[in-house]
Amino acid sequence: MSTSKKLYEGKAKILYTTDDPNILLTIFKDDATAFNAQKRGTIVGKGRINCKVSSHLLQRLEQTGIPTHFIDSPEEGQMRVKAVQIIPLEVVVRNIAAGSLCRQTGIAVGTPLLPPLVEFYYKNDDLGDPLLTMDRLRVMNLATAERVEELRRLALAVNTELTNFFQHCGITLVDFKLEFGLDAQQHLLLADEISPDTCRLWDQAEPDAKKRVMDKDRFRHDLGNVEAAYQQVLNRVLAQMG
Amino acid sequence: MSTSKKLYEGKAKILYTTDDPNILLTIFKDDATAFNAQKRGTIVGKGRINCKVSSHLLQRLEQTGIPTHFIDSPEEGQMRVKAVQIIPLEVVVRNIAAGSLCRQTGIAVGTPLLPPLVEFYYKNDDLGDPLLTMDRLRVMNLATAERVEELRRLALAVNTELTNFFQHCGITLVDFKLEFGLDAQQHLLLADEISPDTCRLWDQAEPDAKKRVMDKDRFRHDLGNVEAAYQQVLNRVLAQMG
Repeated sequence: MSTSKKLYEGKAKILYTTDDPNILLTIFKDDATAFNAQKRGTIVGKGRINCKVSSHLLQRLEQTGIPTHFIDSPEEGQMRVKAVQIIPLEVVVRNIAAGSLCRQTGIAVGTPLLPPLVEFYYKNDDLGDPLLTMDRLRVMNLATAERVEELRRLALAVNTELTNFFQHCGITLVDFKLEFGLDAQQHLLLADEISPDTCRLWDQAEPDAKKRVMDKDRFRHDLGNVEAAYQQVLNRVLAQMG
Repeated sequence: MSTSKKLYEGKAKILYTTDDPNILLTIFKDDATAFNAQKRGTIVGKGRINCKVSSHLLQRLEQTGIPTHFIDSPEEGQMRVKAVQIIPLEVVVRNIAAGSLCRQTGIAVGTPLLPPLVEFYYKNDDLGDPLLTMDRLRVMNLATAERVEELRRLALAVNTELTNFFQHCGITLVDFKLEFGLDAQQHLLLADEISPDTCRLWDQAEPDAKKRVMDKDRFRHDLGNVEAAYQQVLNRVLAQMG
């Protein structure tokens, strides 16, 4: 890392350059933010856990034919990834109603969504990551109609794979957020992370609506035992990966 | 009106029953609200003006084949309408970017939108009338896919007619909000009002971004001369109707 320089620092990760211009090093942080960074805190061990969970899930997705930016995890909390230009869209897949969907529409938390909802949000902190309609996406030139359909198709393929995987972990995948990027050859790659920071995960063994939460909602809503929940997700993912 | 009773009082209008169950009487108020009723005030003469502008425009749309709830205006500020069950959707057509679209997405005010954007908002004060995607509309069962397409088609037909009409008044129709309802026979009718409360209207003779505003944005953003702007819209509409 002698020639590396900090390329970008986000809310949960720092990106460094490496000797290879096509490879970046991601450092996962313990810093936690919520509600567009209005709430800030630390979840001890989060960086290490999210890096490990993400590494396993991205590898698994890669094996099922979904191209990702993952290369390897050289050390705890560090991930080497293919350098991509991130598309400024958050692609959210929802299997069960929760979070902003419920706050904004009045749909009851826990309502099953069949077929799953695929939603696009403009990745822009200043604007609070607004929900986009297909028309707004078009007007803003954020992606072509073909790209949007490709993102939707990939997001649903990820959903099928992850829902099935977490099911075997005794965890319900409620919803999750994906980001995608384009590499130097304009190949579309699944980027960012897949972790309790970016997924809603409910423990199937726990009927209680607060106790079942295994994701960042424990931090968002001060439910306590945040570190233990993140560790529990990692433990089950590792056990399932074998 | 001896047997009439107040059926509903909204932010800008009051609805009364009449002797005929298929007919309601609307009283247009001078009360003005903005930003989900966080801002309140009075625009003197607004009730009378909006009733007259709406009556003329609804009649004109009816003549071009768009079914509306308008019957007649028995007195100043009063409109008799066909009783309908309002569909809880605000259908917004945007020809030029302004208002919440710009605040939410960062699109510059004044950006032409071609083809026009048709947007659906959930008519729900408690939730702040949230923007809906097609998926959210479906999940919320607010309207069938066929009904949504019918609303979109009608809204665009209204846009064509009104854009042309206002053009002859020297006014640019920036955007507007429509509401629709179903009568006892389940006929879809254009309902509510079409006025400077529900349209953004820019004076084509006035290049200045603040001076050109002839609609409720004068009230929303404290631009002054609110009453004069409303009256000017009415004068031009009346002159154009001949």
